[in-house]
Amino acid sequence: MNGQQTIGIVGGGQLGRMLTLAALPLGFKVVVVDPSPGCPASQVGAEQIIANLYDAKALKKLAEKADYLTIEIEHLDANILEQVAASGTPINPTPKTIKLIQDKFAQKRFLHKAGIPVAPFAEVADAESAKAVLEAFGGKMLIKTKYGAYDGRGNMVIKKAGDIAAAFKTFKGQQLYAEQYIPFVKELAVLVARDFRGATLEYPIVETIHERNICVKVLAPAPSSESVRKQAESIGNKVAKLLDGAGVFAIEMFLTKAGQVLVNEIAPRVHNSGHQTIEANRTSQFEQHIRAISGLPLGSVDLVVPAAVMINILGRRNGTTEVKGLAKALSNPHTNVHIYGKSPTKVDRKMGHITATGKTLTEARRRATQARQQLSI
Amino acid sequence: MNGQQTIGIVGGGQLGRMLTLAALPLGFKVVVVDPSPGCPASQVGAEQIIANLYDAKALKKLAEKADYLTIEIEHLDANILEQVAASGTPINPTPKTIKLIQDKFAQKRFLHKAGIPVAPFAEVADAESAKAVLEAFGGKMLIKTKYGAYDGRGNMVIKKAGDIAAAFKTFKGQQLYAEQYIPFVKELAVLVARDFRGATLEYPIVETIHERNICVKVLAPAPSSESVRKQAESIGNKVAKLLDGAGVFAIEMFLTKAGQVLVNEIAPRVHNSGHQTIEANRTSQFEQHIRAISGLPLGSVDLVVPAAVMINILGRRNGTTEVKGLAKALSNPHTNVHIYGKSPTKVDRKMGHITATGKTLTEARRRATQARQQLSI
Repeated sequence: MNGQQTIGIVGGGQLGRMLTLAALPLGFKVVVVDPSPGCPASQVGAEQIIANLYDAKALKKLAEKADYLTIEIEHLDANILEQVAASGTPINPTPKTIKLIQDKFAQKRFLHKAGIPVAPFAEVADAESAKAVLEAFGGKMLIKTKYGAYDGRGNMVIKKAGDIAAAFKTFKGQQLYAEQYIPFVKELAVLVARDFRGATLEYPIVETIHERNICVKVLAPAPSSESVRKQAESIGNKVAKLLDGAGVFAIEMFLTKAGQVLVNEIAPRVHNSGHQTIEANRTSQFEQHIRAISGLPLGSVDLVVPAAVMINILGRRNGTTEVKGLAKALSNPHTNVHIYGKSPTKVDRKMGHITATGKTLTEARRRATQARQQLSI
Repeated sequence: MNGQQTIGIVGGGQLGRMLTLAALPLGFKVVVVDPSPGCPASQVGAEQIIANLYDAKALKKLAEKADYLTIEIEHLDANILEQVAASGTPINPTPKTIKLIQDKFAQKRFLHKAGIPVAPFAEVADAESAKAVLEAFGGKMLIKTKYGAYDGRGNMVIKKAGDIAAAFKTFKGQQLYAEQYIPFVKELAVLVARDFRGATLEYPIVETIHERNICVKVLAPAPSSESVRKQAESIGNKVAKLLDGAGVFAIEMFLTKAGQVLVNEIAPRVHNSGHQTIEANRTSQFEQHIRAISGLPLGSVDLVVPAAVMINILGRRNGTTEVKGLAKALSNPHTNVHIYGKSPTKVDRKMGHITATGKTLTEARRRATQARQQLSI
């Protein structure tokens, strides 16, 4: 094929894999950079450059091969990405947005300045100033690393002044900030897509359920009042308009006891809170992201089923991956299983996910839960 | 991954490609046999054995690699497939079913014996007996080759005794039969799936529109009366139960002026009349086929949109493939484009397809038609 275009993805894990599966039907080639030989994306037709994600040479090679570049993870060297972008291959989201989001403190400041509701936050240079902040925040807060936090790593709850020293010890050498602890009734997320021209589209909001700080379940659409839904959607829309560059962005939010929606954080990419869009929405987050970053128009975000529940298949042991119980897991006809092709399996490693749909969330949740019980990996 | 299972597909064209894209998320590996290096399936993650589909050695190699075997085309050597099956790797549909369907005359006889309505048909050994048959059929009939007919090749309309000689000349050396010409108002198709245990499930019936004997458009669900729908579904169900082996089968039918549904032919595989199931149904025909042939339970066949229209992207010139106008083709957000990765493009070669969905068939059809007009390949 003449003029066949190539999508380059930094990272070839499950997100890169599902992006690849969405890009191929549109006629794209896909190349990924990933350090693990036989990474999940490479198993589904992506060419792989085996290299560390911080390897400037590998990223330049990726840019040479690709017409459009994107990422599946934001923990990258944005300066290298800027250099790569300078060579002419468009990167979306832009290195500027990636840089902003990498620094969680800068991200919070940016959102706050733009009038987006966030929990009160403050820089904490040392244990002494952290104590003052704890007092100002009413005696309960989180200490977080500015960089590199992921799936709950990089967060500590501070309930008393005595906890502060432990946090500074654990996060020694890292830049930290504090956030007031806001009791929340649930967590919500909204996926927003931005195309090349800046047009935006929000998916219906979902509820995310976390355990051990890992997203384990997603309920779509989120069970919520009209007022909460409107708050969350309006925030999603505002945030999407603020960000630079194209792509899908996930905005994670808290619903406080007082009924207020606060932004927790943004992921500048497809996200675990959107896996159920493959079955539940007219356009999956993966196809949407590919469309957005390659200059194609966005697809409809309409739900095509009344309700869907996604459950992550997290590893429960350490060892060689072996999928068992797939037939039993699929015994309800409204259930799908996605296996990521990772080995070994590890405790809490994201090995796959299940999506079940139904007439109600209760029905979908029951189906998804039953499927998870049948499956081992 | 330990115990990872492999699907082997005889043929790696667009059907093999879409089967591959459906098999990978379930955690399967895919291997195909196809004579064209870089075949469509190999571009989306299938390992390819480059060989002719009639190459016994290649098919045996495929069987050694695969846990489950299937086909994307029925024009194969069923005897080789029987030998391969004897080695222990399950082939679905079974070689017995493939054999039956390869011989269109035997297929008709089989259906007729089982009480499935078909147009009157008769063997024609020579031009002389064909004349008698033409008279018996009221002066208009089709002469068809028993074997190898595909996309209209192998069919000739006989309107007068003088046409018979030409047909026998064109099909010299081939076994022929005749079918009474039945004027029809539309063509319908129903996809049916059979699992390992023989349980069956029918997709909602669709209308297929042919030009130059090639399926060019599919309307889902078929605009039809309740009575026609019931006839077609009941036929689909009966045929599925008659056939041997698992998989998706497509049953193509005529609706006569008199309101009767007649079976035209069966395809023992995923089919062009089911491409829109990717977007329009809870489980695509491709995932359904993979589930069926690998012993997994069938997924729901429910429509998830009110209406969908599929239009084939047929080549309009001969030359190197070059996709143009993709962004314009996708400008309506309820439109999808699937490119098969074939080159060169040829007049009437199936290069891809478009599916548009809508609140009504009229809306979906308008969207699909507009998208096709924007795209060149």
